Amino acid sequence: MAAPLLLRNCRPLGGAATDILMAATRIAAIGPGLEAPPGAGEEDAAGLLLLPGLVEGHTHLDKTLWGMGWWRSEVGPLLIDRIEGERASRRGGFDAAGQSARLARDFLARGTTRIRSFADVDTEIGTAHADALVALRETLRGTLDIQVVAFPQSGLLVRPGTLALLEQALRNGADIVGGLDPSGIDRDPKGHLDAVFGLSEKHGKPLDIHLHEPGELGAFALELTVERTKALGMQGRVVVSHGFCLGEVARAPALYAALAEAGIAVATTAPPSRPVPSVRAMRAAGGRIFGGNDGIRDTWTPYNTPDMLQRAMLIGLKNEFRRDDEIAWALDCVTGWAAAACGFSGHGLAVGDRADLVLVAAETVAEAVVAQPPRRLVVSHGRVVARDGALLG
Amino acid sequence: MAAPLLLRNCRPLGGAATDILMAATRIAAIGPGLEAPPGAGEEDAAGLLLLPGLVEGHTHLDKTLWGMGWWRSEVGPLLIDRIEGERASRRGGFDAAGQSARLARDFLARGTTRIRSFADVDTEIGTAHADALVALRETLRGTLDIQVVAFPQSGLLVRPGTLALLEQALRNGADIVGGLDPSGIDRDPKGHLDAVFGLSEKHGKPLDIHLHEPGELGAFALELTVERTKALGMQGRVVVSHGFCLGEVARAPALYAALAEAGIAVATTAPPSRPVPSVRAMRAAGGRIFGGNDGIRDTWTPYNTPDMLQRAMLIGLKNEFRRDDEIAWALDCVTGWAAAACGFSGHGLAVGDRADLVLVAAETVAEAVVAQPPRRLVVSHGRVVARDGALLG
Ligand SMILES: [Zn+2]
Ligand SMILES: [Zn+2]
Repeated sequence: MAAPLLLRNCRPLGGAATDILMAATRIAAIGPGLEAPPGAGEEDAAGLLLLPGLVEGHTHLDKTLWGMGWWRSEVGPLLIDRIEGERASRRGGFDAAGQSARLARDFLARGTTRIRSFADVDTEIGTAHADALVALRETLRGTLDIQVVAFPQSGLLVRPGTLALLEQALRNGADIVGGLDPSGIDRDPKGHLDAVFGLSEKHGKPLDIHLHEPGELGAFALELTVERTKALGMQGRVVVSHGFCLGEVARAPALYAALAEAGIAVATTAPPSRPVPSVRAMRAAGGRIFGGNDGIRDTWTPYNTPDMLQRAMLIGLKNEFRRDDEIAWALDCVTGWAAAACGFSGHGLAVGDRADLVLVAAETVAEAVVAQPPRRLVVSHGRVVARDGALLG
Repeated sequence: MAAPLLLRNCRPLGGAATDILMAATRIAAIGPGLEAPPGAGEEDAAGLLLLPGLVEGHTHLDKTLWGMGWWRSEVGPLLIDRIEGERASRRGGFDAAGQSARLARDFLARGTTRIRSFADVDTEIGTAHADALVALRETLRGTLDIQVVAFPQSGLLVRPGTLALLEQALRNGADIVGGLDPSGIDRDPKGHLDAVFGLSEKHGKPLDIHLHEPGELGAFALELTVERTKALGMQGRVVVSHGFCLGEVARAPALYAALAEAGIAVATTAPPSRPVPSVRAMRAAGGRIFGGNDGIRDTWTPYNTPDMLQRAMLIGLKNEFRRDDEIAWALDCVTGWAAAACGFSGHGLAVGDRADLVLVAAETVAEAVVAQPPRRLVVSHGRVVARDGALLG
């Protein structure tokens, strides 16, 4: 257990300067002029802006080429080209465990203390990636939280044996069941959704479904997802990732309302290249929406970085948030809203919340989002883990 | 005149390592193992990637709050809210000359050696901003090229007296005539376009028209622009900025072809939040398209930075460029294509081109675009002007 830590003169979310006392991994007290208990460490925040620990709500740690030499992409434009391109690239040998750890560390150095990561499960690699992420989760326990989604990237029903492997991954410790394009990949929306919901119910695990399907095809999958979520009483435990159809169909308002009513959250990467779910509309409907990078510099895409403030900026740009109060919603997508949707408990800047804090040189939350200043200090579980963008120890 | 400069062991656009000799502001020789002439300076590029000087094709230096304290935006959502918000904020005093110079210097530190900047001209500030940019252009001559567009931000015909002020700005040295939303702001597409083309013809100056107008309204303005460009023989001297309608109307292919045939280039900021002209489609039609930031941290938008590699990344994301050869087009949007469209001559990495060079730690052009590494060295007109992101002298 770390010694207590007193952070002096920080400005939570740009508010008035105050002190924060942390003890036993939690925020123990907040207020100006706090006294350091015996044996406590002290840090002077010098009036910097304080953010809660950042949350990555949707990424694929096991795919990343981050920190390796540049991989020259000559992959074709279709989804199947990308899936096959990745599977081919792995046959040359790929250190999913090492790469996942490398990227997770760089997330932490930039202030992210909670990550939901998918891990590919298929009939070539089996449960190896999911197992590696479970092992990484245990290694980093107490420093960085990782949720592992067992994810049928190459298809579920169309690739016999995958369902049993998903189940094995759950038995091996994966936290969440993953689904993928019930019609577009598996060609059987009822069959696919029955399978993944069935697995969720059997193992008592939440569900997170990649849904790239366009227009009315995607909307149909959303309806089937809503029906099953309610029938199984899984409100609050289902996420739909991407949900591009919500940016496309005219009846999106009814779908936002249905998702909100069923307690289904939406994860968005806010890609500039296509219509996406609206943060404003989903929140107005009373629903939850949050952000993630998706893949970071992998064979699918060379873009993205382990910096959730950059993701917040892209969410802000995509949703045309210009006012300071709107840009604060973009930060919520990578902090509180993401934590709530993913089930990361005790997230925030209140007494009793876990002591995960980030200090940056910015006047306001909006400036932090648009300028993405270096992380001066990152605290996780009440311990200083990084300074000036570099991990300690 | 600077002494000759020999840059050793650089990789132009990621190709084989070579040396580059610069003399009298130009590239004098390229090849491995060049000899330094007497009195020449020498730089060791250590195998870094060499890019040509970056080009900002569309920005508003005179509006920026860059480097000032954070400005808290509470501006309403309408175009007129933003125009009025900016005009109101200026009444409190705003140092357009100083701010323009500050932002121009930060562009140069990040490798941009040519900038096309709009300067507001209206009946409150008169020609002051345009005159300030003309003065800055002269101050920076020989280090950073600036083109000044006299721009009727608050409307032209709807604000009597503005046309005469635009003409005065041209007489005072502005390089280019600016237009703005002929229907949306001026309520008179024929009248507006006749006025700005008339001014261009009378003064022998190119034209650059902001066209935010949506759908068929914007397409109609494009048609009128094509007609006038051809009638006046102004092919190659007209730019349409934004042209969002090209991302919206079904008949966009015919419009791309008409623009290409009329030698009208399109400037795009590639905003994530709305449909935009397609880089791929415009190039396939034989036309020119290039990139710019538009405003950088001003009362209109808090986003954007004086880093054209970041703009290239956003263009790549928007156009869904994933392959290395596609991402190279995104770089072209902020280098050669922008220079050609704006009429910046002698741009490139061939013997005889002006010696504007940027060194970055990247294996390939695509890596430079997605990672935006610090600028190790910036050379302008054959002189080293910045190292590691900081200007010299
Ligand atoms: Zn994903
Ligand atoms: Zn503009």
